[in-house]
Order: sequence, then structure tokens, then C-alpha cells
Amino acid sequence: MAKAASNKADTLKARLPRGFVDRREDEIAAQHRMLETIRQSFELYGFEALETPFVEYTEALGKFLPDLDRPNEGVFSFQDDDESWLSLRYDLTAPLARHVAEHFDAIPKPYRSFRAGYVFRNEKPGPGRFRQFMQFDADIVGAGSVAADAEICMLMADTLEKLGLTGQFVVKVNNRKVLDGVMEAIGLAGADKAGQRLTVLRAIDKLDRLGADGVRQLLGAGRKDESGDFTKGAGLDDAAVERILAYVSFQTAPVEGADRMAFWEQFFGAWTDVVGESVIGREGIAELHAMMRLCAAAGYGFDRIRADPSVVRGLEYYTGPVYEAELTFPVVNEEGQTVRFGSVAGGGRYDGLVGRFRAEPVPATGFSIGVSRLFSALQLIKSPLLEGTRKPGPVVVLVLDRENIADYQRLVALLRGADIRAELYLGGSGMKAQMKYADRRGSPCAIIQGSNEREAGEVQIKDLIEGAKAAEGISSNAEWKAARPAQFSVPEAEMVARVREVLARHFPVG
Amino acid sequence: MAKAASNKADTLKARLPRGFVDRREDEIAAQHRMLETIRQSFELYGFEALETPFVEYTEALGKFLPDLDRPNEGVFSFQDDDESWLSLRYDLTAPLARHVAEHFDAIPKPYRSFRAGYVFRNEKPGPGRFRQFMQFDADIVGAGSVAADAEICMLMADTLEKLGLTGQFVVKVNNRKVLDGVMEAIGLAGADKAGQRLTVLRAIDKLDRLGADGVRQLLGAGRKDESGDFTKGAGLDDAAVERILAYVSFQTAPVEGADRMAFWEQFFGAWTDVVGESVIGREGIAELHAMMRLCAAAGYGFDRIRADPSVVRGLEYYTGPVYEAELTFPVVNEEGQTVRFGSVAGGGRYDGLVGRFRAEPVPATGFSIGVSRLFSALQLIKSPLLEGTRKPGPVVVLVLDRENIADYQRLVALLRGADIRAELYLGGSGMKAQMKYADRRGSPCAIIQGSNEREAGEVQIKDLIEGAKAAEGISSNAEWKAARPAQFSVPEAEMVARVREVLARHFPVG
Repeated sequence: MAKAASNKADTLKARLPRGFVDRREDEIAAQHRMLETIRQSFELYGFEALETPFVEYTEALGKFLPDLDRPNEGVFSFQDDDESWLSLRYDLTAPLARHVAEHFDAIPKPYRSFRAGYVFRNEKPGPGRFRQFMQFDADIVGAGSVAADAEICMLMADTLEKLGLTGQFVVKVNNRKVLDGVMEAIGLAGADKAGQRLTVLRAIDKLDRLGADGVRQLLGAGRKDESGDFTKGAGLDDAAVERILAYVSFQTAPVEGADRMAFWEQFFGAWTDVVGESVIGREGIAELHAMMRLCAAAGYGFDRIRADPSVVRGLEYYTGPVYEAELTFPVVNEEGQTVRFGSVAGGGRYDGLVGRFRAEPVPATGFSIGVSRLFSALQLIKSPLLEGTRKPGPVVVLVLDRENIADYQRLVALLRGADIRAELYLGGSGMKAQMKYADRRGSPCAIIQGSNEREAGEVQIKDLIEGAKAAEGISSNAEWKAARPAQFSVPEAEMVARVREVLARHFPVG
Repeated sequence: MAKAASNKADTLKARLPRGFVDRREDEIAAQHRMLETIRQSFELYGFEALETPFVEYTEALGKFLPDLDRPNEGVFSFQDDDESWLSLRYDLTAPLARHVAEHFDAIPKPYRSFRAGYVFRNEKPGPGRFRQFMQFDADIVGAGSVAADAEICMLMADTLEKLGLTGQFVVKVNNRKVLDGVMEAIGLAGADKAGQRLTVLRAIDKLDRLGADGVRQLLGAGRKDESGDFTKGAGLDDAAVERILAYVSFQTAPVEGADRMAFWEQFFGAWTDVVGESVIGREGIAELHAMMRLCAAAGYGFDRIRADPSVVRGLEYYTGPVYEAELTFPVVNEEGQTVRFGSVAGGGRYDGLVGRFRAEPVPATGFSIGVSRLFSALQLIKSPLLEGTRKPGPVVVLVLDRENIADYQRLVALLRGADIRAELYLGGSGMKAQMKYADRRGSPCAIIQGSNEREAGEVQIKDLIEGAKAAEGISSNAEWKAARPAQFSVPEAEMVARVREVLARHFPVG
């Protein structure tokens, strides 16, 4: 027994830590096509690529994690030789702020930047929740005008349309200043109430998921969920709770064309009542109104970009407009309910983030796409973008007698020299296993040369796709089969040309 | 003073930890073209993409670091919630071994895999030495035959040629078994001498840099370098030292064509003398000879792939053939000496690595390209590949009166709608600063619309490239200037078409 245990200990278990995954060829290729589409859309808007490393000083990343109750959790950190703390980046915004501050004078401003890459969260993984996941961000630094925020919303809309999601999304916009105005109106102004304000924002953020009753509990004393866990509420009185609920329940009606501007007038008029005399609140409403006018003038209707009071965004650092792109098509959730797919991207204005590194404030606004979530959405709707043009597997040259392996290698080199994806069978198995291997590799054809063929200076080409069809009885017409035989002999000199014919037959260009 | 100090403490320093760098658009684009070329070359050989995460269990990565004297250094590590140790991957080989072992039955074998990605080393950074750097690997798992090793060498050669390095590289091949044979011949066989063997290997590895005398010292008592630092030697006696030096000093002469096979016969005959009666040594020589025959039969001469006794590779886990791709063109090093550029890729056979996770051994061989180093080499020779087709910067629509910003936004939308990279100037500065911005962004032209133009339904197009030429006096011919004016008014409806003309003039397709 002791020996068995020791043997077992000798063999390591091949596994990944929870929340980390491998990805194989098909997924990599499909996601690559999605990312290329996003990149092209960002470049069309004049944005340019930036890449920052995975590791930063922990202090440069700041404490901008969603959960402030556990400030040192959520991030993978380790100490450097000089005892300073380093962390894996947990988003692409903090590194951008650090980069801009570090190279401030060398960067033409306003600076439109895009970045794609993995970020890391040291959180409990679950279905669809990973500890390493990809974000794709676009930001404008150095532009304080809401025209920049409007542009970011248009970019979000255009990008989703380029991904084939026309009519299946909406970009919802709000403004933190409006929310601050509402808070002010219910007596939650001042630095000492910052924590309470954040609790209120996070309660509002759950409107979609919990409904008005759930949010009402979270704004008041607190809420007990199905599992019996209790979440402490913001402790507001009933009047304050109802005022906030009245605010977040404003709904936009789908008005198009000439009536659109009139609708916004009325809509924002009603919002103004909610913030009362709050200066910051009225400023926020004016900004939102200006954004809606800019979007409307550029041809983006209600159906694509619209103000929505329920959008708050969980992060502390937003200072003005906040926005979220939501996919509207229905999906069935884990509890069997039909819900909207939901958010795939979001962001907002963060005028204080670069300023952490500099004496003067630097305005900035931008958004982040959750790449995995967007990819799942495109898989769900069976987006043709993910299919792309399927590339053929490699032509496999079988090895019938190993002493002549240099000869087989030469055949492979001929194919590759003609730019045909090809490989030599390098295993030790027999003919049947080799054919099975070629099949699993998705090979369009196999090249076979026994001693008879070698003496005659010929090779056999076995068309595996034609062969599979024949096996399925599709090509039962004898005449047709004769015209396109699944296996045939050709002189070595003609091998490349005939393989090209097979490829052209099964993978027509264009 | 106290106040100033406190203010300073409030403002974070924007900086990266040593050994980490940001990369901007031009470098990202150039490196992307290099990586795409490599990827296409690997795919042509039938290799397929795999992506593994950045974080692995530390034990899965093993202790295969170059420097065994400090086994727990060199890797960034941190503890998970359950106290197990996690590390950032330090190469792409250990994660491949883990992946193959984890999904062994699902993977068709032999498995040709390629992977590109950043790896991390917690080592002292220096010029050209980073703590995060990219590798691009290709490996064949499940093929024990030297035909696989030969294929890897051919792939290396073909890839370097596709990168435009024809005639400027050589792939040098050796075999660990030959080295083991030499060790056996001088009495260094057996498990208890493993440490001493590694010291010998690392001494040989420095032949290029230190010359025969330096290696002689490292094989004997030890060596004191220019700075006075002493490195302890392997402690071999004089006869053993000279036997090894005789072995590593074998030089291959450039023999081509029909004499090539005869040369290898003679060459390997001489090697056999060095390993004496060592069984493993003779096996290694037979393998090397077989590889050279396969490469020669596939048309790879001496100039591209050749046996070389000085190649040892520093890693402990190699079990058979080892190989290295060296760029041969001259560069001037830090001491002002002219030397060969040196190694940009290397690898070997590691039959034990997957076996750490499984009861039975799994043969594997592969190589790794040092992406940054190869990129530096291509920059040095001013490779046209890195230049690619230069893309134009965005067309910039200037903002002359901010109250009409929605109008300017509409012009931008028109350009983007026609797939022309365009942006609105989003800063707050005047005309002159806006033109300077357009210039720094590399804009082909700027769109200008003052109140006069707006009333007339026109825009001005300012051709910035033509303008720059005119300013340089290149277009001094008055007639030519008149035909291609640098600034002109057009009706709004013609803006897109005329901008296209400007783009076509300066960035002709094809």
C-alpha cells in the first residue's frame, strides 16, 4: 500500500487551477475573426493600438475593484525583490491611465486608444466566470466634452452591428451626476456618505435581476435571498426609497423620426423633477440631453442609443456619463426563465484616473467589451462570422515502409513547396491507424506510395472527402463516381497539380 | 516642506516595474506581421494552434529552469485560496506537456501544436532582457522517430526563409546522447554525476562567447572573469578537458552536392572515436547521422542545417536531438567587437516531460522562437516585412465652432460610413493646434467647415501630404500645383468621393 501511494505521488495530476482554461484551434480561429472585426471598427474611428504588460505596480492599479469590502482580495499579487507589491492587471483601464501619465507629452491628445488582452481576477470561479478572461477596450483621453462620450456610444453601436447584431442590441446611457443629484435630493450628499451612495448605486444596478421589490429591500433595511443569505441595505427611509424607485423606473418609449427630439425634451423634463434643485443633478441631465442630441443628429435612434436611468455601473471611479451595451434577444437562464441576454460591454467617463499620477486632472472616457461573453452571444445566435471560411486540414503522406522515410519526406516537401498544407505521418502505426489519423485531422486527401508505385514513379491520391461521401451513399450514381474517383494513381510529377484539383473541388475559393 | 512632501506622496509615480514595457501601434503592427508569417509557415507544416492560460500549478511547471542553483527563483509565484502554489508560466513547453497529458485520448497523435504567447521570468532585467517576453513554439508530441526532429529543423529553416533571412542563418544540430557518450568516456556516467554533467554542458554552451580557453577553465578548476568574479569549474582532469575540447572543436566544412553524404560519413566517423565504446554515444551519433541524411534528402544542405558539436542547450530535460537556429550576419556587440547575431530559436527532444503526468513515457520534440530577439534581428537588417503596407492615419474633421459640433459629427459619420478612417477633433484648442494634431496623427487630409462653407453647403478639404510636399518646395512647378491643389472646396455631397481621391493618390492600392 505504501508503495502504491508513493507511485501515485510520483505521477503529477495534469490539471489547471480552477477558473483557467485551454483553447483549441477552432475556438481560437473563431474568436480571432470576432476580434479582427472589432479592431477594424475601432481603427475606422481613428483609434490606435496600445499594449501594456500583464504586471503592474499594485499601487498603480489602485483600489478600484468592484468589491470595496475586500480591498486586498480580487487581485493576484506578489512581492518584487525590493519588497514592492506587483499585481496582474485586473482591467485595461488602470494600465492605460498609467501609460498616458507616464508618456503624457509624447502622446497627441485627444488620444484614442484601443487595447485587447487578458485580465485577471482572483475571485471564485463559476459557470462562465473565469479568473483569466479577455477584454477589448476603447478610450478617449484628453477630451472633456460629452461629444467624446457620444462618440464612444456610437462606436459601441457600430461595432455590434459590424458583428452582425443589428436590431439585437441597445446602448443605454446614464450620468453619474444625475445619480449624484438624486442622492443630494434625498440627503446623501457629502464625502462622509460615499459608502452609502455606493450601496445605493449597487442596489439600483440589480434592478434587472431582482426587480423593483428586491431593489426596494436593498435600498431600505436589507434583503434575504432564496438561500437565506442576508444582504444589509442602504438604510434609506421610505420616501427616499420611493423617490429613487420612481427615478429608475422611467421608461423610454420607442419614438422615432421627428418626434424623437420632442420626446427627449419631455423625458428630461421629468428627470429634472427628480433631482430637484441639485446643481450637479441638473448638470448631469444637461449632459445626457446633449449626448442624445448628438447621437440623434448622427442618425442613431432610440433603438440603438438611449438614455436609461437604471444604468449605474458598479465602479466607483466614474465621474459623468456611464453606458452599457445590452443584447436584447431572449435566452433561457439557469432557472429556466426566459430573459434578455444582457450586458456585453460597458463603461463611462473617469476624469480622475489619470489625475492620480499628475497634478492636473485629465478627462477620459471609454468602454470595455467582455470578449468571452460577446463570443458566447455570437455562438448562441450561430453567427456566420464565427464560421468564416473553413480551412482544409493538412494533406497526410502515409508511411508504408519506414526505411524509405526520406522518400516520403521528399513528397511532403514537394507539397509544402507548392504552398499546400501537408504533413508526414510520424507515428509508428499501420495503414489503418494512419487513415484514421488523417480522418481525425480533417485531411482532404492522403498520399500513398507502396513499393509498386515507387518503382513505377507514381503515387496514389486518396480523396478522403469524396470517399466519405461515397461511404454515405451520396454518390451512388455510378457514372458520377467514375468521373470523380475517390482514389487514383498519378505520376509523381503530377502529384501537386492533382492534389490542387482535389482541394479546389472541396474548398472552392470565393 | 512637510506640505510639499505630503503633496508629492499624494501623486503616484506613473511607472512600470523593471523588465516590463509598453508597446505602441507601429511596433505592434510590425511584430504582428512577423508573427503572422511564422503562423502561416507552421500551418503549412500541418501544425495547429493551442492556447494555454498564463497561470499554472507551480508543480505542473516543474523545476526545469536554466539555473538549478536557485530552484525557487526565476518564477513569479503566489498562493491560491487552498494554499496550493500557482505560477506564471515561464515557457510554453511545460504547459503543452500538461495539456497533452490532461487530454491525452482526445488528441490525435502525433500531435503537431504551435503556441505563441508571453512568458515570465523573475530574473534581473537588463538591456534586451525582459521579465515578460514572447515565445513562439512548435512541437510534435507522440513521435519518437528522428524524422520528427528533422522535420522540426526543416520547419525552423523554412520559417526563417519566409521571414526573409535566406542565406543569413544556420540550424545547428547535436544530440544529448552523444554528449552523454563523451561524458561516459571521461568517467562522468551515473545518476550521482548529473550535477557535474550539467556544469560541463553549460561550460560547452559558452564556447561561442568565451572561446576555447574560457571553456577550458570552466571545465577545469574554474574561471575568473574581467570583473574579478570567480565561477567554479567542473573539476575535470586535463585529459578529460582536452577530450571534450577536441570534441566541441570539430568544425564542419561547407561541402555541397554529391560530396555531402560522403562528408557526413567521415565527419561522424571522427565523432565516433570521441565517444569510444559508449553505447548511448554511438546511438546518438547514429540518430544525428539519420537526421542529416533526412535533411539532405529533402534538399536542405549544409548551409541551412548541419551537425555541430558545440550545441548543447542549457536545459536539463532534453533527451536526444538538440538544435539551435543562429543568425550569421555580423553585429557590433556592447564591447565594440563584431560578432555573429547569434541564436534566435532553439529546442530539442524531451521524451520525459509529458511522462511526468502519465505512467508511460510520451516522446516529444519541438522548438521555441525568441520573438523579441528575432524581431530585433529583422529590425537590424531593415526587413521589408516589418514595414508592410503603411496605413494612412485618420481623416480629421476640424471643429471651428463648438455649438455646431453635431454638424461636424455628421461629416465624420459620412466618412466612416464610406469605410474611411476618420475622427472628429475632440479637444478644446484652436485651428492651429488642431492642424498640428492632424499632422501628428499622420492624417492624409483635414476637413474644414466654417460658417461661410456651411451656408454654401460646402467643405474644404486640406490635403496634408500634398501640403507638406509644397512646404518642402518639392512641388515648385506652378502648373503641377494648380492641377493638385493642397486645399480646395467641394459640395458636401462630393466630400466622400474627393477624400477617396486624395487617399488613392497618396496610398495607391497594390
